Amino acid sequence: MQNFHRDGICPIRDVLSRLGDKWSLLVLVSLQTNGVMRFGDLQRSIGDVSQRMLTVTLRTLEADGIVERKAYAEVPPRVEYRLTDRGRSLMPCLNGLVEWAQRHADGILENRK
Amino acid sequence: MQNFHRDGICPIRDVLSRLGDKWSLLVLVSLQTNGVMRFGDLQRSIGDVSQRMLTVTLRTLEADGIVERKAYAEVPPRVEYRLTDRGRSLMPCLNGLVEWAQRHADGILENRK
Repeated sequence: MQNFHRDGICPIRDVLSRLGDKWSLLVLVSLQTNGVMRFGDLQRSIGDVSQRMLTVTLRTLEADGIVERKAYAEVPPRVEYRLTDRGRSLMPCLNGLVEWAQRHADGILENRK
Repeated sequence: MQNFHRDGICPIRDVLSRLGDKWSLLVLVSLQTNGVMRFGDLQRSIGDVSQRMLTVTLRTLEADGIVERKAYAEVPPRVEYRLTDRGRSLMPCLNGLVEWAQRHADGILENRK
């Protein structure tokens, strides 16, 4: 029996568990669709994400080199977010998941009844 | 600006948020690799998952029709888990994510320093 213990595939488990949450997925899909965005744009495009949750999500994605944060020394200060090359390379996988979910959402909701 | 509000793509958000957690991913990858498994097999193959967490994860995946639970009327009782067709159809996306994470894990860990 092949196992998937922490020590064996720990970095992969760690990387994927930081990507797997709903807010990361929505930030990435929104940046892919809308390109360069500000914090407020992201918050409006996702709708029900709290300021704190969006801040934490962006910070994690930035730390992992998946999203780039650019601050402009202007008054008032301007901060923009965009996908990095690494972020863009992730999108085919995530788009595949979104398409899978679109195809199966009705069946899954039916299954839960 | 395209938005991704709850009401717009709610079922997709809901479906993906139940799939995105680390334990679901590990259960699915383990079942794909090891085929039919018992609860104890799954727990040993993942290693550090608690009994409660594995129970909740399996119940969610079963409710969504992604994993099948089969109980045999034997003494002692025998229960087996396997991927359903829907579960198998999900694996190419998840395998893509795992491969992406394998390729980028070092770079991501480096990025965090």
